[in-house]
Amino acid sequence: MKTSSDTSFKVTTGPLPASRKVYLESPGRSDLRVPLREIALHPSAGEPPVMVYDTSGPYSDPAVEIDVRAGLPPLRAGWIAERGDSEAYPGRPTRAVDNGHATGEGLVPDFPASRTPLRAKGAAVTQLAYARRGIITPEMEFIALRENARRADLRAEAPAAGEAFGAEIPAEITPEFVRDEVARGRAIIPANINHPESEPMIIGRNFRVKINANIGNSAVTSSVGEEIDKMVWAIRWGADTVMDLSTGRNIHNIREWILRNAPVPIGTVPIYQALEKVGGVAEELTWKVYRDTLIEQCEQGVDYFTIHAGVRLPYIPLTARRVTGIVSRGGSIMAKWCLAHHRESFLYSRFAEICEILRAYDVAFSLGDGLRPGSIADANDEAQFAELETLGELTRVAWDQDVQVMIEGPGHVPLHKIKANMDKQLASCGEAPFYTLGPLTTDIAPGYDHITSGIGAALIGWYGCAMLCYVTPKEHLGLPDRDDVKTGVITYKIAAHAADLAKGHPAAQARDDALSRARFDFRWEDQFNLSLDPETARDFHDQTLPKEAHKTVHFCSMCGPKFCSMRISHEVREEAARQSAEAEAGMARMSEAFRAAGGEIYQAKED
Amino acid sequence: MKTSSDTSFKVTTGPLPASRKVYLESPGRSDLRVPLREIALHPSAGEPPVMVYDTSGPYSDPAVEIDVRAGLPPLRAGWIAERGDSEAYPGRPTRAVDNGHATGEGLVPDFPASRTPLRAKGAAVTQLAYARRGIITPEMEFIALRENARRADLRAEAPAAGEAFGAEIPAEITPEFVRDEVARGRAIIPANINHPESEPMIIGRNFRVKINANIGNSAVTSSVGEEIDKMVWAIRWGADTVMDLSTGRNIHNIREWILRNAPVPIGTVPIYQALEKVGGVAEELTWKVYRDTLIEQCEQGVDYFTIHAGVRLPYIPLTARRVTGIVSRGGSIMAKWCLAHHRESFLYSRFAEICEILRAYDVAFSLGDGLRPGSIADANDEAQFAELETLGELTRVAWDQDVQVMIEGPGHVPLHKIKANMDKQLASCGEAPFYTLGPLTTDIAPGYDHITSGIGAALIGWYGCAMLCYVTPKEHLGLPDRDDVKTGVITYKIAAHAADLAKGHPAAQARDDALSRARFDFRWEDQFNLSLDPETARDFHDQTLPKEAHKTVHFCSMCGPKFCSMRISHEVREEAARQSAEAEAGMARMSEAFRAAGGEIYQAKED
Repeated sequence: MKTSSDTSFKVTTGPLPASRKVYLESPGRSDLRVPLREIALHPSAGEPPVMVYDTSGPYSDPAVEIDVRAGLPPLRAGWIAERGDSEAYPGRPTRAVDNGHATGEGLVPDFPASRTPLRAKGAAVTQLAYARRGIITPEMEFIALRENARRADLRAEAPAAGEAFGAEIPAEITPEFVRDEVARGRAIIPANINHPESEPMIIGRNFRVKINANIGNSAVTSSVGEEIDKMVWAIRWGADTVMDLSTGRNIHNIREWILRNAPVPIGTVPIYQALEKVGGVAEELTWKVYRDTLIEQCEQGVDYFTIHAGVRLPYIPLTARRVTGIVSRGGSIMAKWCLAHHRESFLYSRFAEICEILRAYDVAFSLGDGLRPGSIADANDEAQFAELETLGELTRVAWDQDVQVMIEGPGHVPLHKIKANMDKQLASCGEAPFYTLGPLTTDIAPGYDHITSGIGAALIGWYGCAMLCYVTPKEHLGLPDRDDVKTGVITYKIAAHAADLAKGHPAAQARDDALSRARFDFRWEDQFNLSLDPETARDFHDQTLPKEAHKTVHFCSMCGPKFCSMRISHEVREEAARQSAEAEAGMARMSEAFRAAGGEIYQAKED
Repeated sequence: MKTSSDTSFKVTTGPLPASRKVYLESPGRSDLRVPLREIALHPSAGEPPVMVYDTSGPYSDPAVEIDVRAGLPPLRAGWIAERGDSEAYPGRPTRAVDNGHATGEGLVPDFPASRTPLRAKGAAVTQLAYARRGIITPEMEFIALRENARRADLRAEAPAAGEAFGAEIPAEITPEFVRDEVARGRAIIPANINHPESEPMIIGRNFRVKINANIGNSAVTSSVGEEIDKMVWAIRWGADTVMDLSTGRNIHNIREWILRNAPVPIGTVPIYQALEKVGGVAEELTWKVYRDTLIEQCEQGVDYFTIHAGVRLPYIPLTARRVTGIVSRGGSIMAKWCLAHHRESFLYSRFAEICEILRAYDVAFSLGDGLRPGSIADANDEAQFAELETLGELTRVAWDQDVQVMIEGPGHVPLHKIKANMDKQLASCGEAPFYTLGPLTTDIAPGYDHITSGIGAALIGWYGCAMLCYVTPKEHLGLPDRDDVKTGVITYKIAAHAADLAKGHPAAQARDDALSRARFDFRWEDQFNLSLDPETARDFHDQTLPKEAHKTVHFCSMCGPKFCSMRISHEVREEAARQSAEAEAGMARMSEAFRAAGGEIYQAKED
């Protein structure tokens, strides 16, 4: 057990197998380098390496020296400074209450390097404000290069057009396309000016479907070192953003350590910390405490806030007959406050003031679904959809102030009710990006809710959801550990990728095709390396055929050599090619049945 | 390591937690007792126990003494005998080649109890033949009771109507409904007269979605004891049928051990054994060897055969440009044979003769999709759909001979191409039940293909697929072990149940509702016991809150006590109820906002 003053936190570094970090350079500016992961294939493949989108940050680049105590380099600091529209200021002093009055050994140490926060001099410093003014920011250019990921170089088999349900993914993502989508509110770039360490990314249904991983300690368990490790671990496997849902003491200092080491946007739910500041008594929450917490977190660099401003007083009775009541932590806290005071939620009544704060730092809203259903029985009910309408109303208020917005969604929803969620969200919220938790498609599998929800996530991602919040196997049962985080992230990468494929994303199928070609060619190493989790694929294979020689044999233990369809399929092709050659030489040994097949001559693959 | 003469095979017995085997008795006949599992709830729930469909057979009944060397009691023997349309006969003698000429220590011992096989005296002895003649068999009555599972007693929250895409699931399943569905070919009852140990079950889209688990050794690994254990293990977690895909030596004797101990229908792919009989050389397969293998397996009691009779010679060239060629083992074997001989497949040309054999034992066809796609790139291609048309043609031939038929389907299919598979299958094959492998919705996650395919399985089950063949985490990498079998089964139970919910199955949501009520009431034990995998749910919970006292506390380690939304939600309800009571007493303290909510008075749940 570490003592709390030991800050030699360990994180996982180094590249994934056969992978190399490469950087795409902006033609225009030398300080704009976009990381991608290049997966090398065996020379026998005769194919170029496969480029994939890379969320892992500097941790997977052996050329970068990682020091958790120093934090990551401030990639975006120059871009923010050159805009000249923000200024450094002393900021709000950290108070004992910010860390729950933790002291001594109980206090997580301060992050060693101190920073001076920035805020807008006047006008909004949001990507939305720039986009509306026609400005293409370096963030937008970065995102265009990143989303493209050199897709023109990919070798894809001719993929059929997908079914995109109104999404419009262009063949090539240009900086102007990014700008336009942000300007229309259809995509957001979570990028607090106080989190310059983050690599720009975009959330919108005309881009790759993104995934979020939740981390954070609870009052019962976990420590700062574990949470930093989970963050780095989550992005290693593909998390696009990370939410720090820490509660309990030390919440300020844990967040600082995470932010300074996070190359992805960080989201939080500020009401959690506000509640800690009032001793956990919901009724004692005040706008003043909440506002103070927003500013504290804006200054630290949080990129998006979940704010449950749609939990209005009149909606609370609508939850009375529900099977599982209110299952959002933030939603239940605000419901309790509203009832206790017989007043409208201050998150709703003060919403314009919240916008004024967020626009000064470019913190995006993630408008929380505090009344989301917590069971199949409660899905798509009046409470849920009443709140969604209000979130649409608030979206327009935020947009009026140039604040970026995405909308959170459920929860627990059976398959046949998922599409209505997506359709209503797009209609009610002016196409602002949707960000859903799952949804879980059944309640009967605690311990496997990554799967019950991965099914729903794939479906809603296909229908147009822009970001999928992962669910781990521990959902409903306990705090996820490192293994759970990985399982959750991989499951959601599957869901997001399945959605991209189905939407007809022009670059998605290339990786499937490369892996399938490797499979058919018995390039086992390539098959492992192209997979979402090379280590597990290799481990599973090696459990029954561990020898190195087996990495090139033309079968596996599943079927054994005589029953390997792929091996036989190659023999079929060779035989067919031989016969075809003979036929062409006039030996006319091809059967009538062969000719009947529309004159299609059977040929070996490489001909 | 066991020696091969040691037949003291261990299997898992005993009930699941809080569960008790109950039997529904036929009002008409004392030898018809339908097993269900009754899950007891905590007295504080104030709810009756929850009845669930039970595939586990006598193994989970402590009143039954299990002796793997004796096999299970022949439940259906009396029913078969009383029909008077079959006769015992000496049967085909077992030959050394049936076990790949294994001898001595290499030979799996004969099953201790020998049997005399039955066959039809004349007319077909199939459930389809009886159904068409208007006969309700005991098997049909058994299935009606089983599918109903006392659904009238279930306490469900008012579930919304599902979207069933043309499926018509009645509120109550009657024996006549079962008969009618079988007579129309829309459902099958796999029930070989030589497998009287099996508990009748039905596969059709107007019944609960079923799942199949594959077991079986390969030439590289596994033993008979492990395979029996996997079979019992798979049905313990919910497999409705089991396919024995053993290859290599000892294939006859392994199958005999499995059949005599299987309370679920067993499927096989007879070409695997036929190929073994000709030394693994596909070209040397003959109709005579194949026919002999069919009879051997009919006499043993296999309930359904995968037969790749749709892999016709003219279709083989259509696979030439595929990324992954032919990925069905049976399909690739037959393709090789066809090409080598320039002849139409004997499975196709002799199909009527195959029907004559199967009708004499009531073995159902599972018409194999030998040309199914093995990669996203190959999905829904010409080869696949050409074969599907042929399977429709063969379905009509089989039906003419009163043989039951289901149709196998893919494979690897992106989300947006799944529905076309279901629609084409229904149209081409006269609504014969569809039985698909997944489909996998992306190729990029070896090691997680239970998830890539569970997504597709849930979707195609919703669209109307009647049975889902599981995929384990080891797919593409190696032979599944016991843990993989369990993970595959649970994943597919999730998919099947999510499909039932979405179709609006009248009994499906009751279990979700019971579990969600337990969750909201903090009845942790009930929550574990109602889940698909109570042991894992409990283990996960106990990793962070292991003490017994924590089984009743009103929070878990995920959020801790202060942030538990469900705990707060109860407080909200109590406060609302108190305020409501005060309002009713004329104290008029309710806010305007409350009244604005349509006069709906907020009440505690139990009022």
